[in-house]
Amino acid sequence: MRIHYECFMCIADQCQRIIEMSTDDLEKRKKAAVFAAKLMSKLKEDSISGIVASEIFSELYKFLGVEDPFKEYKERSNELAKKVLGSIEKNLDVDLKTALKLSIVGNIIDFAVGYSLEKIEGDIIQLINEDLYIDNSKELFDRLKNAKTLLYLTDNCGEIYFDKLFLKKIREEFPDIKVYIAGKEQPAINDATVEDLRNAGLQEVGEIVSTGFGIVGVPFDRISGKFKEIFESADIIIAKGQANFETLNELGDNRIFHLLKAKCRPIARELGVPQGAILCI
Amino acid sequence: MRIHYECFMCIADQCQRIIEMSTDDLEKRKKAAVFAAKLMSKLKEDSISGIVASEIFSELYKFLGVEDPFKEYKERSNELAKKVLGSIEKNLDVDLKTALKLSIVGNIIDFAVGYSLEKIEGDIIQLINEDLYIDNSKELFDRLKNAKTLLYLTDNCGEIYFDKLFLKKIREEFPDIKVYIAGKEQPAINDATVEDLRNAGLQEVGEIVSTGFGIVGVPFDRISGKFKEIFESADIIIAKGQANFETLNELGDNRIFHLLKAKCRPIARELGVPQGAILCI
Repeated sequence: MRIHYECFMCIADQCQRIIEMSTDDLEKRKKAAVFAAKLMSKLKEDSISGIVASEIFSELYKFLGVEDPFKEYKERSNELAKKVLGSIEKNLDVDLKTALKLSIVGNIIDFAVGYSLEKIEGDIIQLINEDLYIDNSKELFDRLKNAKTLLYLTDNCGEIYFDKLFLKKIREEFPDIKVYIAGKEQPAINDATVEDLRNAGLQEVGEIVSTGFGIVGVPFDRISGKFKEIFESADIIIAKGQANFETLNELGDNRIFHLLKAKCRPIARELGVPQGAILCI
Repeated sequence: MRIHYECFMCIADQCQRIIEMSTDDLEKRKKAAVFAAKLMSKLKEDSISGIVASEIFSELYKFLGVEDPFKEYKERSNELAKKVLGSIEKNLDVDLKTALKLSIVGNIIDFAVGYSLEKIEGDIIQLINEDLYIDNSKELFDRLKNAKTLLYLTDNCGEIYFDKLFLKKIREEFPDIKVYIAGKEQPAINDATVEDLRNAGLQEVGEIVSTGFGIVGVPFDRISGKFKEIFESADIIIAKGQANFETLNELGDNRIFHLLKAKCRPIARELGVPQGAILCI
């Protein structure tokens, strides 16, 4: 997906968030904001939103001298996700389809840090009671029956606990499938790195692999080595969240199933769905 | 006032607003956003926030081929302000001090377009019942007694109707004072131009003059001609709103009284007051 007009402001907004997460020193924040302002000229009309954003964030990290400014935030999301999920699993009989929906709506953990457990759990239960706005899950499950390998592209921390549950259900249903679970090589905002995946025990439900980059989504024209082999040979690819959609949708690759909530206007516009829609496409 | 780190994101946000106000064409919006992203490199650590923002906005106007994208919005604010003020004057006995406070809180009209008249009126009444967080109004009124000339620097449309009422009260109290009312020469977001001031009948309460620029606030190192003379010879200057503060506070000119609501964090931080505080300083 190429940038839409709103991406400029959204990237600026995330730069401010990165700056605030990285330092409390107001002078350093100002210098970083002036530096980020200059980085904005990287935006071109044909830029792929997730890629150009990641390039800007990565230079800003270097300027700020930080490796992972979202570390604490990611830990809080993980803690919250674990608790919410523990409670949901107690109160709800989670089948494969429910686990798929949970893996999509688990994304709201990203906005929920600070809310009460009850509120988040309530919101999630409400969302999984809704139908998917576009629902190709039957086709996904049918094709998983005959698949030998599945590549699962994760998105944010927090959400990865919901992914773990979904992958557990997939393995129960399709025990012969070989599952690869991709995380980022280096930190990129609140995306799960391979280290985050390991810490969350994702190795219990598949083999953790690295995309090779600290870039949100998959920069498919730059991937190499083992990840490239897995990406190219996978029978089915489940791609979570907006950034994987932004970086992969133009491939038109029918092995890829996108599971996402269309959180922002550009994604909703690109897909022709209402903002907020939850989708398996 | 030099930029704070938040100014980067805020200017980007206002660029998006300008783009949305200027065209519905998504391709044109995208081209303009990419152009605005490049303009961000104008930000320097020692930039004066209102000035650099105005320079960016003005280039964006040219790129978009628009003269005054906020025209309709300004008209709506004016209509709303007229109605709210009509109702307030019926229900409230407005003395000089109340009129001063009204001229500050009238600024909230800027955020109120879309709300009901009752809600806005209620909010304004509540605000003028609060004390000013810093209140130099007694000194202002004392000095107006002996002043021969007053220069009144306006801020936004909408609010200018509240300024008109305040200036009417000033003239009743200090009938011998010569009042100049400054508006912008060209449009700059929702600031009042001299034309806007004329349309609102401000000539009934003073002589309308132009700052000479389509720049928010007063770029005091560039002013010339009649406005420069008035600015330099005025006994008292009342400067409304954040942009006049941003562009004039470093002068440390004790003829200037700033009437403003500290709406954003940078201004509140610069002044050492809580965000949202209303001030006569």
